[in-house]
Amino acid sequence: MATIGDIGLAAAINIITALIFLLAFAVLRLQPFNDRVYFPKWYIRRLRTSPSRSGGVVSKFVNVDLKSYVRFLNWVPDALRMPELELIEHAGLDSAVYLRIYLLGLKIFFPIMFLAWAVLVPVNVTNDTLEKAKDVTFSNIDKLSISNIPLGSQRFWVHIVMAYTFTFWTCYVLKKEYETIQNLRLHFIHSEKRRPDQFTVLVKNVPPDPDESVSELVEHFFLVNHPNHYLTHQVVRNANKLADLVEEKKKQRNWLDYYQLKYSRNQSKRPVTKTGFLGLCGDKVDAIDHYTSNIEKLSEKIAAERKRVMSDPKSIMPAAFVSFKTRWGAAVCAQTQQSKDPTQWITGWAAEPRDVYWPNLAVPYVQLTVKRLMMAVSFFFLTFFFMIPIAMVQSLANIEGIEKRAPFLKPVIEAKVIKSFIQGFLPGIALKIFLILLPTILMMMSKFEGFLSISSLERRSASRYYIFNFVNVFLGSIIAGTAFEQLNTFLKKSANEIPKTIGVAIPMKATFFITYIMVDGWAGIAGEILRLKPLIFYHLKNTFLVKTEKDREKAMDAGSLGFNTGEPQIQFYFLLGLVYAVVTPLLLPFILVFFALAYVVFRHQIINVYNQEYESAAAFWPDVHGRVISALVISQLLLMGLLSTKEAALTTPFLLALPVLTIWFHRYCKGRYEPAFVKFPLQEAMMKDTLERAREPHLNLKGYLQNAYIHPVFKDEDDSDSDDDNGESLEKYEQELVPTKRQSRKNTPVPSKISAGSSPSIPEVTSEYTKL
Amino acid sequence: MATIGDIGLAAAINIITALIFLLAFAVLRLQPFNDRVYFPKWYIRRLRTSPSRSGGVVSKFVNVDLKSYVRFLNWVPDALRMPELELIEHAGLDSAVYLRIYLLGLKIFFPIMFLAWAVLVPVNVTNDTLEKAKDVTFSNIDKLSISNIPLGSQRFWVHIVMAYTFTFWTCYVLKKEYETIQNLRLHFIHSEKRRPDQFTVLVKNVPPDPDESVSELVEHFFLVNHPNHYLTHQVVRNANKLADLVEEKKKQRNWLDYYQLKYSRNQSKRPVTKTGFLGLCGDKVDAIDHYTSNIEKLSEKIAAERKRVMSDPKSIMPAAFVSFKTRWGAAVCAQTQQSKDPTQWITGWAAEPRDVYWPNLAVPYVQLTVKRLMMAVSFFFLTFFFMIPIAMVQSLANIEGIEKRAPFLKPVIEAKVIKSFIQGFLPGIALKIFLILLPTILMMMSKFEGFLSISSLERRSASRYYIFNFVNVFLGSIIAGTAFEQLNTFLKKSANEIPKTIGVAIPMKATFFITYIMVDGWAGIAGEILRLKPLIFYHLKNTFLVKTEKDREKAMDAGSLGFNTGEPQIQFYFLLGLVYAVVTPLLLPFILVFFALAYVVFRHQIINVYNQEYESAAAFWPDVHGRVISALVISQLLLMGLLSTKEAALTTPFLLALPVLTIWFHRYCKGRYEPAFVKFPLQEAMMKDTLERAREPHLNLKGYLQNAYIHPVFKDEDDSDSDDDNGESLEKYEQELVPTKRQSRKNTPVPSKISAGSSPSIPEVTSEYTKL
Repeated sequence: MATIGDIGLAAAINIITALIFLLAFAVLRLQPFNDRVYFPKWYIRRLRTSPSRSGGVVSKFVNVDLKSYVRFLNWVPDALRMPELELIEHAGLDSAVYLRIYLLGLKIFFPIMFLAWAVLVPVNVTNDTLEKAKDVTFSNIDKLSISNIPLGSQRFWVHIVMAYTFTFWTCYVLKKEYETIQNLRLHFIHSEKRRPDQFTVLVKNVPPDPDESVSELVEHFFLVNHPNHYLTHQVVRNANKLADLVEEKKKQRNWLDYYQLKYSRNQSKRPVTKTGFLGLCGDKVDAIDHYTSNIEKLSEKIAAERKRVMSDPKSIMPAAFVSFKTRWGAAVCAQTQQSKDPTQWITGWAAEPRDVYWPNLAVPYVQLTVKRLMMAVSFFFLTFFFMIPIAMVQSLANIEGIEKRAPFLKPVIEAKVIKSFIQGFLPGIALKIFLILLPTILMMMSKFEGFLSISSLERRSASRYYIFNFVNVFLGSIIAGTAFEQLNTFLKKSANEIPKTIGVAIPMKATFFITYIMVDGWAGIAGEILRLKPLIFYHLKNTFLVKTEKDREKAMDAGSLGFNTGEPQIQFYFLLGLVYAVVTPLLLPFILVFFALAYVVFRHQIINVYNQEYESAAAFWPDVHGRVISALVISQLLLMGLLSTKEAALTTPFLLALPVLTIWFHRYCKGRYEPAFVKFPLQEAMMKDTLERAREPHLNLKGYLQNAYIHPVFKDEDDSDSDDDNGESLEKYEQELVPTKRQSRKNTPVPSKISAGSSPSIPEVTSEYTKL
Repeated sequence: MATIGDIGLAAAINIITALIFLLAFAVLRLQPFNDRVYFPKWYIRRLRTSPSRSGGVVSKFVNVDLKSYVRFLNWVPDALRMPELELIEHAGLDSAVYLRIYLLGLKIFFPIMFLAWAVLVPVNVTNDTLEKAKDVTFSNIDKLSISNIPLGSQRFWVHIVMAYTFTFWTCYVLKKEYETIQNLRLHFIHSEKRRPDQFTVLVKNVPPDPDESVSELVEHFFLVNHPNHYLTHQVVRNANKLADLVEEKKKQRNWLDYYQLKYSRNQSKRPVTKTGFLGLCGDKVDAIDHYTSNIEKLSEKIAAERKRVMSDPKSIMPAAFVSFKTRWGAAVCAQTQQSKDPTQWITGWAAEPRDVYWPNLAVPYVQLTVKRLMMAVSFFFLTFFFMIPIAMVQSLANIEGIEKRAPFLKPVIEAKVIKSFIQGFLPGIALKIFLILLPTILMMMSKFEGFLSISSLERRSASRYYIFNFVNVFLGSIIAGTAFEQLNTFLKKSANEIPKTIGVAIPMKATFFITYIMVDGWAGIAGEILRLKPLIFYHLKNTFLVKTEKDREKAMDAGSLGFNTGEPQIQFYFLLGLVYAVVTPLLLPFILVFFALAYVVFRHQIINVYNQEYESAAAFWPDVHGRVISALVISQLLLMGLLSTKEAALTTPFLLALPVLTIWFHRYCKGRYEPAFVKFPLQEAMMKDTLERAREPHLNLKGYLQNAYIHPVFKDEDDSDSDDDNGESLEKYEQELVPTKRQSRKNTPVPSKISAGSSPSIPEVTSEYTKL
């Protein structure tokens, strides 16, 4: 049992770590040569082109203005200053709503914390159960928790009442939030400019026909069944191999650039490389010649493959993007069944062109269901077998465990500082390392399942990651710590005594989770803002690859929000907060600090760093809502399990009502708000169509939509040399085809002062781009 | 423990009961004066108008043709002879598909029975576990069951293999059947004639508007949002009070008829009645005058109320039936969301006019969700508290229980015949009586929940009834019988040791369920064909109320299939069959007899008796499929529970895979086949529209749809005297507005010979209506 002293030490360590990170960030971000690492979003949006400032050569790389270091935390008010509407315009609705998840945490837990400390802590602390029980070791923390209430006490009624209060408050905030986000989404969609995906439907599983090509078949089918609305279509070609080749060429060109730069710096010696594995073995050759010839060969191959894909009918997949004359027509087609056979002519909204995940566009129905089953089973095994190593590490990282296994370490471990360190730090780190590997695997699994858009891939991965976290981090920590032996008998046991076991173990695990929050939630978030990995990579690339300003642009790795990892992390804190709110209110302030810190940090990152990959208009909110609800239900069930061992049997029926009400509330919200996230009302479509017809009666919609959904590798067909120049071609393509809101800022001469203020406080830069 | 002797006696009793019922039926059905009881369908369809035959006065009432009694079972081949397509035409797709549920049972259990007897019975019987165990009483039946296998035996692998085989076979048959029924449904819908519901959408929750009436609002909304497709609409009026008055008038008229008839038979004395409660107290008045004046008063009230409903804007509910010019337009509107706010302008297919449940047409969204929650909670309490009386009766109806409670009865009970009787008969009867009360309650609950069509009301009630049966009859019998004490500690106990407890108790309860099958499934079904209640009521009405031929028509109570009670009953047999297939194969033949008998009986009833209330085109099949799947999963879980107590732990992982695969199969089927039952493909709609436009270019669709959806009480507004004449007005109304397939037969001169043959074998009658 960790004492308050242990916690204090761990808190000190983590606060210091976090402060070091924040200080390092404060210093590094002010250096002009790091400008592209810490403010890439402004470069990507073309609101800034170079960190140029007055001054000598030195000040081009190092900020010598000492005054700016004094106010090292003033990125915080900057980050908070940009109003939400402007944030939506600047970074998209997805990012703005993502930030609201942190706000939601603050809104839910701030009042809960006050209530819990005002009511539950006094109720708990004024008992002496733990002091009386002689065979139990306990710490001061446990005195504040529910463990301190004697068996069968009437005081448990206070906990029940609080459980009800917390549930109602959480549901109330959730409902408010769902409503707000629904309105944001509807407003966002309503005020959106014309976009190809508003007119386009993706049709899959076009049945094979011996007489007609896929293209003809699609045209005929939609001309017959949507005669007044069908406009045009684009068949989907299997360009996966071509994309691989282009990717390969890009890699080769990187090497070529590297060697050319090396040679230009040291003209005395032509660089050499080895042709074998990773350049480590094989014949020595001249590197520049080698890569130049490689690139030439690849260019030929690419040209041939491109020709084949464009001409070979076999490369046409039984899927097509079908565009309609009106949004109404597209909305109708996307939301109805076309053919008698529900496995043919499957229609659904086309994702935004940026968001389409091309490799999955033609998976037949049966294969899809089989793949889903396979992934469900694999995920089950991944979740439950991954548990064993974690549990082993955790049992090692517990004082008694180490002493048992390695008695000779006893004197060292018993030293107070080291003991506190081991107990406060190690379990959290061990877990974290395991978890870093996971998102990639989960993403691959989602891809294998055949989702069609990046946003849906990320949503699926997020929900799997959450389940994994729940089973392995939450349950795994609780069960393995208190009863590692249980894991062995896991399968033999009736899988149903577990809730009670967990409920009992929860108060004992409070200290572990407090340290976990500090490591993962405090220091981790502070580390996020430092962007250590992109910082190093940028400077490496800058040294070895960058020749032109364009290359420097490419070397920037803005990154993006990463919904698939970030959201489950936040949800884990919701789970912890809700579970411990009634049991150990001491945990709540730690969680609140996390939410506040993370909100500021991510707001800063979203404004200055992350580059939005796609815009789903907050389509993920039903998932977020659902997971908070599930955390709520879990907390209620565990409280029930806990109380059922406290000889407070009378309370059980009252607790039983809670999950019922919560689930009903969820269903109510689902019916009330979810349609705004999955359907597209015809009234809305009709309104926009009518407006557009009045404003632009002679619009050439067909021309506008003609090439909207072309595989990215075909985008830059004409300038075959710029295969690798994705950034620019994307830019160009967006300018031509997808005039999203993001462009509009370019033409508005003066960004609002608040927005300007949220950029770093270097006056020269600010004034420079306000003059644009 | 009942022995094979007990079972034999119970079987004998039940077979004799069933035979008595069948014999009584054979005799009664041949009597001309019962003709309207046993062949009402032919009267309703106007294929027969009277049981007229040659012969004297006697033969008008009693069949004196002795030859016809000899072949007393030949209704069976008659019932089986009508081919399915003709059956669909004769009785509708719902009825035909309903019969296929019994066939499904035969298809699933026939091969399973053979396999179980060939493999499992030898494996079980060649052990001597039960003989060795001295403290256990057992019967010969248990020797055939899994109880006879020693703990930890390798023979359990045989049971696992069989569980797999049975699962795969069941799934295979289910898939085949789903496919067949999907095709039947699609074909049926495709070949349907024009019907108002094909063009009509029910829009609910029209938002209130201060400036416009509901009617104007609806018109404007659909003119704007479906400009090319909107045709007309009919607002819904709240005529519930009017309907009550009409109902009341009908009752009063029945009394008037009764007294008039009484008076006409005995002119010496005017009949008198008392004005008080039920005619038992209060002032004495002349009955005929009393009721005549009552009816007059009611007629006035009805006229006033009708006027009020038609003119008062408050009686207009915020709902309307909106009709479209094309099926395509209706299909689009029914399947899309109209407004931004998903709780307004909710659209869905209008049910068939016959199928609309009028009182529920305007329940707002929030009220609806609250009502659902209330009903869910009530159903929970109903299900779990209803259990206690049943368990009490059951514990009474067990020999040891009776002897304990009433020791003086011991000598009587111990008499062998009585003992067998009590054990074999009483528990089944007690259960049955309880269950008779239930469907009405469940139906009321469904109505309260706000479903809009009779078919959906019945589907909802059916699924609740099934759950009730599962908890109370299945689990209740198993747990209460073996451990009544468990019920008291039910709430305190971790709700999760139950599967194991049930699994262990299952083999012991085989004999109980065998007797249950015989009482409920054999004698009960044989009783169904006798139609005792309609028989008595018909003759009572005939004696006291019938004056004209039209009255006689009204006195017929054809009844209908009663999906809400019938289907859960069948499903219960599926559950028993699947659970016991591996555990106690002895049960299977009893279930097979049930399926075969019920198939024949209901085929006969559907052909000759039941009057179809509505046609949902087999919309219930997904429910049927889902419940068989759930029975399969339950059987797998219980087998797992049972085997986990048999020290066959190694087998558990293999059994775990079964429910996973089954649920996956269910999801596959859901995706593959369910859309055919809930969606309406646009291709299909377009095809029918095109055909219709080509065939009838000058069709006045507006006129056709104008009055299709009018509340039944407004149907016969002009002849105010025939309020009560629902049969005729319905008939007329159908002729005018809803030319369904049922009418077509009237004009076809010669029904097929097979169809004719399936009517009773009275040559005169047959020839009479073939001449029609």
